[in-house]
Amino acid sequence: MSVATKATIASFGGKLLKLSHNASTTGCEMSFNLYLPPQAVNQTTSKVPVLIYLSGLTCTAENCSEKGFFQHGASKKGIAVLYPDTSPRGLNIQGEDDAYDFGSGAGFYVDATQAPWDKGYKMYSYITEELPNTVFAAFPQLDSNRVSITGHSMGGHGALTLFLKNPGKYKSVSAFAPICNPINAPWGQKAFRGYFGDENTQKWNEHDATELIKQWKGGPLDILIDVGTGDNFLKQGQLLPENFAEAAKQAGLESSVNIRYQPDYDHSYYTMASFSDDHVEHAAKYLFA
Amino acid sequence: MSVATKATIASFGGKLLKLSHNASTTGCEMSFNLYLPPQAVNQTTSKVPVLIYLSGLTCTAENCSEKGFFQHGASKKGIAVLYPDTSPRGLNIQGEDDAYDFGSGAGFYVDATQAPWDKGYKMYSYITEELPNTVFAAFPQLDSNRVSITGHSMGGHGALTLFLKNPGKYKSVSAFAPICNPINAPWGQKAFRGYFGDENTQKWNEHDATELIKQWKGGPLDILIDVGTGDNFLKQGQLLPENFAEAAKQAGLESSVNIRYQPDYDHSYYTMASFSDDHVEHAAKYLFA
Repeated sequence: MSVATKATIASFGGKLLKLSHNASTTGCEMSFNLYLPPQAVNQTTSKVPVLIYLSGLTCTAENCSEKGFFQHGASKKGIAVLYPDTSPRGLNIQGEDDAYDFGSGAGFYVDATQAPWDKGYKMYSYITEELPNTVFAAFPQLDSNRVSITGHSMGGHGALTLFLKNPGKYKSVSAFAPICNPINAPWGQKAFRGYFGDENTQKWNEHDATELIKQWKGGPLDILIDVGTGDNFLKQGQLLPENFAEAAKQAGLESSVNIRYQPDYDHSYYTMASFSDDHVEHAAKYLFA
Repeated sequence: MSVATKATIASFGGKLLKLSHNASTTGCEMSFNLYLPPQAVNQTTSKVPVLIYLSGLTCTAENCSEKGFFQHGASKKGIAVLYPDTSPRGLNIQGEDDAYDFGSGAGFYVDATQAPWDKGYKMYSYITEELPNTVFAAFPQLDSNRVSITGHSMGGHGALTLFLKNPGKYKSVSAFAPICNPINAPWGQKAFRGYFGDENTQKWNEHDATELIKQWKGGPLDILIDVGTGDNFLKQGQLLPENFAEAAKQAGLESSVNIRYQPDYDHSYYTMASFSDDHVEHAAKYLFA
């Protein structure tokens, strides 16, 4: 459970910490970043809430820390931002580094059930349990009872599914260009086939946001999604927010899902930078309710 | 003078354009980025002013476009941001790629007078004349009469020297961790020896901000400088803002130079991101005066 500090960087009045720990769920050293806003650095009387940002394919904790601009809004609101990695690293599983969309950098926030990936590719358990337990033990100024979640692309899929599978665990959820219906998209099908095997089993549905929202019984929902109309992966059918919106509508949750199609925005961090303040604001509404 | 558009990226309600042109001063194709705020994209009645951001050693136009967050403030104020490259590229001068602090990525915003660098290493003329002439010809919605300048490290040296050498050319100047006294610092001495030859000639002094401010006759000055106390290059004596402050004091310009020593901030883009809004605000005060 001990956390090693690799770097401490001043950012927007707070500190961005580059950290790592030996994770038992993944069986390897996992790097992650944690932004402590000024309110947490200066050890004020009250604990600060946490926003978890899940990154997309090929990313590490660094990409959004450098280019997403979340620290700008989080600093003002007094919210810590936790940036996990996207997969185990260096497990020496044959083929783990062969593709950008499977294996290293592509954990998809699931617990693999199929060999050899079931050895370490347990990103669902890592993100929902081991990492937060580790972080809250190491940073008592963070409030384990006030956690929200967001993410981009594969990380948007992670944010939506972790939220929908765990009613009450997260105070709010939002996403940027999320993979909304992986069982019907090439990236998702490749990942689920590799990590779960078979075809369209119940296991696949359990990690598909569009399937999950059909079953939602968790009470009032307020999901913010931004996706750019210039996003090539939207055009290629990898994201399918329209399926998520339709499922929400069928479930009587149409008013609970706010999908903003942002004109011309692409799949890059320029989009997160442009709208991260809105997503921090969305989280703050519930973290400080 | 024709400009090629390589990419158009939506950012903070405006457009970040990745551009290039064949430059006669440098004798090669030069890439640069231009951020058009919403006010310039939507072709409003009035022209928008321009803030030039000069990058530091090893950088291209991309670094600050992605990590500096100038678009955030520039979008709100209605200011275009011009991100030039830091040197000619691919001139095939022997040794041009041998060091991070000389040659490619290290033009130092001077016109080299010593062979072989005098062939193409003309970044002073490029930044003060050819690039703006090219940009204003290609983008009539930009106001050539309202231009401010800023930069980081080597680019902070560029911003300070270009401003001080050309009274009235720029409406304002600011800098992040600028090389303030290159004739007395290792980076600057290596560059000036290579580009100008000799030792401490008048030519060296003409491109040293600390020497230039001693001679300033351009009227009221208001220079904003941010430098982090955690900046290793400050500690190593590469920046010497204290020499610049002392020279300003001796010249009776103490109140004209506002050097903010930001606690713990380092030499990275995390520092620009944290304070870019302040520098855009500083420029806006004069661009909209």
